[in-house]
Amino acid sequence: MTEFGLIEYVAKLFGDVDRQEWEAIGDDCTVLPIGGGEVLVMTTDMLQEDVHFLRSATSARELGRKSLAVNLSDVAAMGVKPVAALLSLALPVELTDEWAKEFVDGFHSLAAEYGVALVGGDTTSSKSVVSINVVAIGRGRAEQVKRRSAAKVGDFICVAAQLGGSALGLKDILSGKINSEYAALHRNPMAQIAEGEWFGGRSEVHAMMDLSDGLASDLCHILKLSKCGAEIEIDSIPAVEGDVEVAVCGGEDYKLLFTVEHSAFEVLAREFEQTFHAPIYKIGRIVASEEPRINWLKDGNEIDIEWRGFSHF
Amino acid sequence: MTEFGLIEYVAKLFGDVDRQEWEAIGDDCTVLPIGGGEVLVMTTDMLQEDVHFLRSATSARELGRKSLAVNLSDVAAMGVKPVAALLSLALPVELTDEWAKEFVDGFHSLAAEYGVALVGGDTTSSKSVVSINVVAIGRGRAEQVKRRSAAKVGDFICVAAQLGGSALGLKDILSGKINSEYAALHRNPMAQIAEGEWFGGRSEVHAMMDLSDGLASDLCHILKLSKCGAEIEIDSIPAVEGDVEVAVCGGEDYKLLFTVEHSAFEVLAREFEQTFHAPIYKIGRIVASEEPRINWLKDGNEIDIEWRGFSHF
Repeated sequence: MTEFGLIEYVAKLFGDVDRQEWEAIGDDCTVLPIGGGEVLVMTTDMLQEDVHFLRSATSARELGRKSLAVNLSDVAAMGVKPVAALLSLALPVELTDEWAKEFVDGFHSLAAEYGVALVGGDTTSSKSVVSINVVAIGRGRAEQVKRRSAAKVGDFICVAAQLGGSALGLKDILSGKINSEYAALHRNPMAQIAEGEWFGGRSEVHAMMDLSDGLASDLCHILKLSKCGAEIEIDSIPAVEGDVEVAVCGGEDYKLLFTVEHSAFEVLAREFEQTFHAPIYKIGRIVASEEPRINWLKDGNEIDIEWRGFSHF
Repeated sequence: MTEFGLIEYVAKLFGDVDRQEWEAIGDDCTVLPIGGGEVLVMTTDMLQEDVHFLRSATSARELGRKSLAVNLSDVAAMGVKPVAALLSLALPVELTDEWAKEFVDGFHSLAAEYGVALVGGDTTSSKSVVSINVVAIGRGRAEQVKRRSAAKVGDFICVAAQLGGSALGLKDILSGKINSEYAALHRNPMAQIAEGEWFGGRSEVHAMMDLSDGLASDLCHILKLSKCGAEIEIDSIPAVEGDVEVAVCGGEDYKLLFTVEHSAFEVLAREFEQTFHAPIYKIGRIVASEEPRINWLKDGNEIDIEWRGFSHF
């Protein structure tokens, strides 16, 4: 069973339970209107030792920080400010107190930076691996929320950072180069948390999500839910080390992917640069299409490549 | 490091992060006012294979149902109706599709019974054990919420069901009698979900929580937060098979423990019986005390026993 097969099975099974006001699964977060024009958004991620991390190749502090970062990235991708988190930890009995303390120190360092309160959790022992589950909650105005279904034909497709660094880092770690620059980036992803909230305030930004499985895979989620296709100019992709395939297929970048009303792009890019001292990269555009298909272009001509994203399952 | 040592370390560390309107950790759930006189309550529990369950001694369906039951029990213990859940699953690659489907079937069966929507989750693979994390969310009126800190001197201490059955079942399972009546009860705890919401509507019910670690341990949480002591008449404890020590020290009963304004007890008990066709058991009373201490009484006389609850850490 693949990860997506299971999700579809669950979604179908729960078709008989009234969702009340909760939005359907499909975005980075679920959305709950709470009155007064406000919403809560909520996401959860599980990190399992030997699948998401090797204990020998990451410090406890880095792991604590990353566990929260990947969840705050999902909240930010909805255009909303993260406000709270819940942390569940299963810790092998042979782990030292020091390891556990360093883990929560790392988690806390990022939480404190963004004013994210720890509002609940669970700790238990484990007879095998470290298991971590984090829930992140955001709160904001209903009109801030960016959904994957909101892309419009003609929109520019943009990313807000260079891509592929984390995947290069994973390669380095797996080949033993655990102290390389990219290995450090893989362990310490810089999620675009303030940037996400900023885009939430811009109505010309239509669809948004964070890149966790690679552009080739993640963009398809937007295309499916927005019922359209995409053209991507591969030379426009801001690839770390110029490695476009890694930038497109590599996972865990935790950078924002979004679509923008094309006539508003120049102003948005200028004001983003003024605020964050970094550029937005325009990599393609949304096109009408029966299928949620990406056409990869080089110098405006379609090229025949089959790029796929990354899956933890 | 014990479970409680880590929780205290985390609580201290997060002292510098503004909790906004979220209530402090200490109850079964955290509480968030959302305007219009309403609150959300939220809880999370992690279940780790070989610590919380043996895959060889439980069916996937039972495990799915229990994973949700223990969380709905926490929501009900706040006096609030559960409305939504999030499910994270790490599944070993050798597990069959059938196992995963049966797990979610079990989870769904309980969710559908109580109208609990699945609003989010995560699935991933595991190179070792099954790890499960569930979040349950309740929604209700602010005045319904029952807190551990609300017990008053003179209150009767009550439970709403017989105790100890789950612990007897665990003993059976560990000794190989996996098909005994109590073993089935251990795998299929009947959390008092409707009862919890009903008590939420009764202002004469002061403090409430669910029994997950045993009366001896759990009652102390109420005593600490309510700054009082307790006298328990051991012959009044509704112990399964008459085994009072198991009823007091055994974990995972998931039954409600609560304190009641003593003058209102008779009416409450009668109306509960009319509604649920089951009795409330009065087992003792809240007394003034500098220390959060339980005095165990037999025929009104203090007896010298040292009973402790159950810990998964």
